[in-house]
Amino acid sequence: MKLEDIGEFGLIELIRKEQSPQGGEVLVGIGDDTAVIKQGGDDYLLLTCDALVEGVHFHLDYTAYRELGWKAMAVNLSDIASMGGVPKYALVSLCLPPLTDPLKVKEFYWGLRELGERFGVGIVGGDTTSSPVLMVSIALIGRVRKEHLVTRSGARSGDSLLVTGTLGGAEGGLKLLKRGRPYPKGMEGIIRRHLTPMPRLKEAKLLVENLEPTAMIDISDGLALDLSHLIEESGVGAEIWREKIPLHPQAEEVAKILGGSPYDFALYGGEDYELLFTLPPDQVERARELLKETDLTSIGQILPSDEGLVISVGGQKSPLVVKGYDHFSK
Amino acid sequence: MKLEDIGEFGLIELIRKEQSPQGGEVLVGIGDDTAVIKQGGDDYLLLTCDALVEGVHFHLDYTAYRELGWKAMAVNLSDIASMGGVPKYALVSLCLPPLTDPLKVKEFYWGLRELGERFGVGIVGGDTTSSPVLMVSIALIGRVRKEHLVTRSGARSGDSLLVTGTLGGAEGGLKLLKRGRPYPKGMEGIIRRHLTPMPRLKEAKLLVENLEPTAMIDISDGLALDLSHLIEESGVGAEIWREKIPLHPQAEEVAKILGGSPYDFALYGGEDYELLFTLPPDQVERARELLKETDLTSIGQILPSDEGLVISVGGQKSPLVVKGYDHFSK
Repeated sequence: MKLEDIGEFGLIELIRKEQSPQGGEVLVGIGDDTAVIKQGGDDYLLLTCDALVEGVHFHLDYTAYRELGWKAMAVNLSDIASMGGVPKYALVSLCLPPLTDPLKVKEFYWGLRELGERFGVGIVGGDTTSSPVLMVSIALIGRVRKEHLVTRSGARSGDSLLVTGTLGGAEGGLKLLKRGRPYPKGMEGIIRRHLTPMPRLKEAKLLVENLEPTAMIDISDGLALDLSHLIEESGVGAEIWREKIPLHPQAEEVAKILGGSPYDFALYGGEDYELLFTLPPDQVERARELLKETDLTSIGQILPSDEGLVISVGGQKSPLVVKGYDHFSK
Repeated sequence: MKLEDIGEFGLIELIRKEQSPQGGEVLVGIGDDTAVIKQGGDDYLLLTCDALVEGVHFHLDYTAYRELGWKAMAVNLSDIASMGGVPKYALVSLCLPPLTDPLKVKEFYWGLRELGERFGVGIVGGDTTSSPVLMVSIALIGRVRKEHLVTRSGARSGDSLLVTGTLGGAEGGLKLLKRGRPYPKGMEGIIRRHLTPMPRLKEAKLLVENLEPTAMIDISDGLALDLSHLIEESGVGAEIWREKIPLHPQAEEVAKILGGSPYDFALYGGEDYELLFTLPPDQVERARELLKETDLTSIGQILPSDEGLVISVGGQKSPLVVKGYDHFSK
């Protein structure tokens, strides 16, 4: 038996079973975007980490070190956003081939800081070591006011399902990057979506401070897989309306050039780092006003658990195929 | 210019310069065993991370996955110990080749938990991804009572310099492991010192709760290099007495078999994960009583900064050569 046989989610299931018994100060352990730790005062502590590996998550032939630093910070910030929290401190584990140019390491840190400082994150420590491939793992520590915490598990039947921004851009951009230069004209925006995503911390803050989102997750593995996590943790079903999925404005054009469906980019591509959340229907209008600078789209609704996860296309419902990128699959 | 030209410490210096401006809630940032964060209540938060990379820090032909889990936890626990703290929560970034046997991943977690639970650590989150080589990075979050915090920077001229346990064992054990089986008889102990070190959390707790250690560091890079960090951060000099260095009981025998000096194992080998600390001389006797179950040895004294860092051998003083293992050097 090998990891490629059980896949990434088989591995996560295995690791979940090997965890220490939780409880006590651990309010949320493995299975959400961050761990949540009880402590004195008005806040919970949020703890998360994410690793990016050369050749798996990025390729240096189309990723500048500054972009890599930005993205390594962004993917962690996005996890803090999806809990309704505020990021505070980062630890950076950086594994570098000995032939790396030190200037590139500086550029990596510039990217880390450029995004981190925008949201008040201090890089307080880390570890550097040599490695045959470039690998970075960031641990991010944040805080959330107790009354602002949103997990994956609070969605209720009847809630509206919303998403910030647009989807499918990161996958469309990646497809262009993988095909290589020259890129078709006017594609800078969609390529940026892959290389330097912007985590939705501001939007999450507005939501949790003013409304009562019942569940939230960031879209890192694709709309289908991340929605399946949300409904599984909440013990509900859901329906998404395919026509309502807000596609990145260039996703359709990329699909025309390179093949594929822009809806598949959104559903199965991942790395858009938008917020997917549920809200009592009477709060949707207020959410639109609050987030008027950001696209905010109702893409479906939460159903009782026995209705499962369905997608409706032109009024026709069918079970949503749930799959995502699996690092370990053959 | 390449990293192998500037070396690990050139790289650390470069990264230090690229840090965010610190201050505010960050009491100690990069440059100690952990970061120290001010917060409400009686405690500071301690944050640290350390990565282990296959082929650099360990080889799977002589390291079982369970031992790797233990060691990945141990090196981080040791950093918390050296600040006088209590470890609490771990995040585990695990990068694995797709051909890894899932059972080996379980064994890795058993090792992590076996040591972590001994000291009350909960594994609360992490990330798994595929990778061409096995890599683990652990971020550990701990706490320390404000009055118990010990950094690298408080040593004063006249203080005694002490070390727990014995030194040179990890390097001796590694030399045997690298040479390969069969190992000479009676060498299990020294091999264990390399594979499954025991962090000195209990000893650190006894020290900070009962005495006033002025500076403390764990010996991960060898006595010479770690002492040089301590005196640099404290702005002092130091003298060590070579004859007093407590050698691992099998270090001399390994040196006889494989060549080298057991004192060099202790000074330059690293990975012993003992505590090196400074204490007002009138507290040394009390320290010995408190740590009577652990070897505790006075190995030198702190001097004014202009006396530098010296080693005395048979009463003859000479400047201590400072070097350690450099992951990046050619």
